[in-house]
Amino acid sequence: MSIQSFIPPQRTLMGPGPSDVSPQVLSALSRPTIGHLDPLFVGMMDEVKSLLQYAFQTENEFTIALSAPGSAGMEACFVNLVTSNDTVVVCRNGVFGARMIENVKRIGAKVVVVDGTWGRAVDPQMLEECLQQYPQAKFVAFVHAETSTGALSDAKTLCEIAKKYDCLTIVDAVTSLGGVELRVDDWGIDAVYSGSQKCLSCVPGLSPVSFSEQAVEVIKSRKTPVPSWFLDQSLVMEYWSGQGKRSYHHTAPVNSLYALHESLLMLKSEGLENSWVRHQLQHQKLAVGLNELGINFIVPENERLPQLNTVAIPQGIDDVKVRQYLLQEYNLEIGAGLGQFSGEAWRIGLMGYAARSENVALCIAALKDALAQK
Amino acid sequence: MSIQSFIPPQRTLMGPGPSDVSPQVLSALSRPTIGHLDPLFVGMMDEVKSLLQYAFQTENEFTIALSAPGSAGMEACFVNLVTSNDTVVVCRNGVFGARMIENVKRIGAKVVVVDGTWGRAVDPQMLEECLQQYPQAKFVAFVHAETSTGALSDAKTLCEIAKKYDCLTIVDAVTSLGGVELRVDDWGIDAVYSGSQKCLSCVPGLSPVSFSEQAVEVIKSRKTPVPSWFLDQSLVMEYWSGQGKRSYHHTAPVNSLYALHESLLMLKSEGLENSWVRHQLQHQKLAVGLNELGINFIVPENERLPQLNTVAIPQGIDDVKVRQYLLQEYNLEIGAGLGQFSGEAWRIGLMGYAARSENVALCIAALKDALAQK
Repeated sequence: MSIQSFIPPQRTLMGPGPSDVSPQVLSALSRPTIGHLDPLFVGMMDEVKSLLQYAFQTENEFTIALSAPGSAGMEACFVNLVTSNDTVVVCRNGVFGARMIENVKRIGAKVVVVDGTWGRAVDPQMLEECLQQYPQAKFVAFVHAETSTGALSDAKTLCEIAKKYDCLTIVDAVTSLGGVELRVDDWGIDAVYSGSQKCLSCVPGLSPVSFSEQAVEVIKSRKTPVPSWFLDQSLVMEYWSGQGKRSYHHTAPVNSLYALHESLLMLKSEGLENSWVRHQLQHQKLAVGLNELGINFIVPENERLPQLNTVAIPQGIDDVKVRQYLLQEYNLEIGAGLGQFSGEAWRIGLMGYAARSENVALCIAALKDALAQK
Repeated sequence: MSIQSFIPPQRTLMGPGPSDVSPQVLSALSRPTIGHLDPLFVGMMDEVKSLLQYAFQTENEFTIALSAPGSAGMEACFVNLVTSNDTVVVCRNGVFGARMIENVKRIGAKVVVVDGTWGRAVDPQMLEECLQQYPQAKFVAFVHAETSTGALSDAKTLCEIAKKYDCLTIVDAVTSLGGVELRVDDWGIDAVYSGSQKCLSCVPGLSPVSFSEQAVEVIKSRKTPVPSWFLDQSLVMEYWSGQGKRSYHHTAPVNSLYALHESLLMLKSEGLENSWVRHQLQHQKLAVGLNELGINFIVPENERLPQLNTVAIPQGIDDVKVRQYLLQEYNLEIGAGLGQFSGEAWRIGLMGYAARSENVALCIAALKDALAQK
């Protein structure tokens, strides 16, 4: 066994994430590690909270970055809020809705599924009908931007309906945060989680989460302990409290938080609305190019995620061969289909720093070449 | 609110972790992010497995780095192996033994505590007496190197006793891995977890874990699902399987794994035994210097961790003032006491890259100055 230092190539990341990380963020990442209880680091964590509040458009005091990937963020929302006596309505229109169901089941709670079509937004009317049928429902959970299908759901309307039936809302914003409009407070989202490696263009490994006051109340008034010690947010709250009385929970991933801080600063400096517009513009450029290549979108136009473009693999084209060719010849990564779309679709990401004209141009040119290969 | 890029100072980290990270590891950390399903990255993960097997001295096939801090590694060991019908003997001689108890309780299993003295090793005879009394015990759990007290327990003997009573062993090696002798296979450890930010001198955020074949058997034959989806190692196994059939679970923290790969390479290149010797030598140098300053160790000599030196704060000395002075004047971090030792002790770390003559020299000189301040 002779293992050498790992020197990765410079890829262009246009899959479903991780997305391209800017040199500015990579540079922040590698600054000298300091202690996680160092007063300077605690101050930086406060800034991360404040920058995340901006990104989420919330004034929720409990807005932090969890020290683990987005799937742990999802689990944190469920295991802290839901107990075994609760009924949870989960809207499923892709892999991540299905994962929510798995989370609810492991808690032992009752799950009611609003089953939607893959590649389509969640149907608000189906949710409303379900809630009429299950008045005992306490939570409504759905995925804002389905990473497995590229469909954007109308989170504002879905939350309105949930509120009408007195439900708390749990929203997956892994792929939406920073890429499309998301307004946690205005829309009435009670628990939301995201990932660092999508439209924030930070390195993977962190999960921004935010809980409304009402959600925090639910956590504080639990009668049974949260099954997970690591994800117990009543302990994590103390760790992020920042008012000088910070209590030890675990060792924060110091350097990854430097990177998140920097990527959130970049978002703030661009302006959140400007970032949404940029994603939309680059998406339109990409759509023109794909159209010229005869490649069709799977999701209807008004339900498409600009930052994740799911397209049908053209007839007679070898999925794996094309992706390998793009990677080897152009150092370009696009995503494979997932779940029902495995082997049927490609997922082309334009997330965060990757949503740039040069990436779109490269992708179209490289795809054109790849499709012309025998 | 005007937030700027965060530029941390260059600290010398001689607390209980994170430890000093070498420039070589920081440089690896900031290499360009590639996709977590990229064949090159999958190959690197295989190398990380192999390097971790060396560090743990194990041939366990299931040896990986969990995508979360050491406390998640602890939880992963417990929630995957222990079910609510089981009896677990936990040896407690510090904060992290107590945390193990908390983990067992949240599973709903029966916990039997072998209560030891803070600042002392676990007493093998007390464990044996306990196992005689509780023949139904299925697991024995203990902390090899108690980060809260600086005490090293005789893991080899404790495991021997556990095996004599047909128990599986769960061992916390967060602070021991790389710093003192640890032989997972020879000693009969069934589940072990560590942290990236101690004697491996990698950035915080990852938890190396390893499960014996027998432990994997227990996981595979569970009749109830693991309460945590994120920590369900039967899913994580598939993700790390590396035989080309790698199945998606979550997005690995790509850059942190670059850093871990590099830090493990450094350990391999130095040689594991050499690293143990280096920690011991630097510890002895530090002990001489502390002795000259009239600072006394809390742990008896033959139970001391070389990499974490717990000393009594001298009479009349202001704990917080001294640590602040060291930080502000020397950019030197030493650790506060934790739990029972809060305000009573300092914890001086010599972990991994921090176990160097220049660090010892700085620490002694700076402490001398700090103690002389009014």
